[in-house]
Amino acid sequence: MRRLLLLAHRVPVDGAFSLNDLAGGAGRMDEIARAVSTAFTLSHDLRRDTEMTVLFVAGAPDRARRIDLVGARLRHLNPDERSTAALLKNALVRAAAYPLPFESSPGLRIGPVEPARALAEFAQQPGVVWLTESGAPVRSAWPNEGDSGAIVSDPFDPTEAEAAILVAAGIPRVSVGPRSLRSSQVIDLVHAEWDRHEAERGAAPVNGPAPARSPAPGS
Amino acid sequence: MRRLLLLAHRVPVDGAFSLNDLAGGAGRMDEIARAVSTAFTLSHDLRRDTEMTVLFVAGAPDRARRIDLVGARLRHLNPDERSTAALLKNALVRAAAYPLPFESSPGLRIGPVEPARALAEFAQQPGVVWLTESGAPVRSAWPNEGDSGAIVSDPFDPTEAEAAILVAAGIPRVSVGPRSLRSSQVIDLVHAEWDRHEAERGAAPVNGPAPARSPAPGS
Repeated sequence: MRRLLLLAHRVPVDGAFSLNDLAGGAGRMDEIARAVSTAFTLSHDLRRDTEMTVLFVAGAPDRARRIDLVGARLRHLNPDERSTAALLKNALVRAAAYPLPFESSPGLRIGPVEPARALAEFAQQPGVVWLTESGAPVRSAWPNEGDSGAIVSDPFDPTEAEAAILVAAGIPRVSVGPRSLRSSQVIDLVHAEWDRHEAERGAAPVNGPAPARSPAPGS
Repeated sequence: MRRLLLLAHRVPVDGAFSLNDLAGGAGRMDEIARAVSTAFTLSHDLRRDTEMTVLFVAGAPDRARRIDLVGARLRHLNPDERSTAALLKNALVRAAAYPLPFESSPGLRIGPVEPARALAEFAQQPGVVWLTESGAPVRSAWPNEGDSGAIVSDPFDPTEAEAAILVAAGIPRVSVGPRSLRSSQVIDLVHAEWDRHEAERGAAPVNGPAPARSPAPGS
């Protein structure tokens, strides 16, 4: 299983933003939507072997929300940024005044969260790395056995408190390249590393469902 | 210089599509916009060392348009899909009934094109590869000297005529990974390869202009 955790620092946690202004008033919801989209979509497939947690931490801690996406059961995820943002926004709006977790759409669960605790728990799973520019090169540092996971921030750095949690967890810091990349680009490179290790092990990729499709474009 | 050519098979060449339905009636303009966006944007920078040609080939050949984007002079490119699509749409609309090339916005030139000829000319430049799933692995096949370029298709395969042009040009076929990826994901992996070779050569990256920014997020 491939596990991703994404920190969303400024997206309004109650979903009160416009789909027409994702890069502005929505607290860079465009980057969150793109990161979710590229975490799960292939050319004509979905990555069924991926799970992703997005922590929406803007504002008071008791208003924070987590969205958990499970590739094996995910539906209604289209490749474009706007419809992905709409799917997440719908969940945030419905959960804004609701005290319990629930499934907002197939494979997408939302609920209240203690961000610090959720981050620490994710970091304590086996094979989890912290993706950061100051990390060791991915080719030498990537954990290549069993399940693994990666923590990515949105366009804003982890807070000091978040960084302290990751330092305390003692997880490896890994960099996917020499340039300062966007969250969605980082996720593409992490998946490429997972794909490469999977192919080297001779493991079959977990896509699906088997699509009726023409051969795929350039890859 | 890094050069990219992207084939846009179904986007209405006159820009007659809605920004609210990029993945539907716009002929997968969402993927074109995302590909352009990720070709030029870094976390808080633009890639000034990149040039990209998009061939809009839907419909009659005499209505085809080319858009050339030059990273060194590019402005008004925001990271989100919708505003990138709007920038391209604006150029297509203005060029629809105009017989000559012109600069629609800084660093973005548009004009009529003979698609077959433009594709052949691009392919005949030194160091150009055809990114396709059936290609050789990028790590062994990437041209690592001087300028290079890559040809990518949108979510639709190159036509037989386009493939014939690329075969006739005799350029290498390269695959960036074992999975069938989206055009934007392919571009992320190509840039990663360029970045890696650049870092190995000890060359300084060409970003800019130097931004006033906080340290960048996970990469």
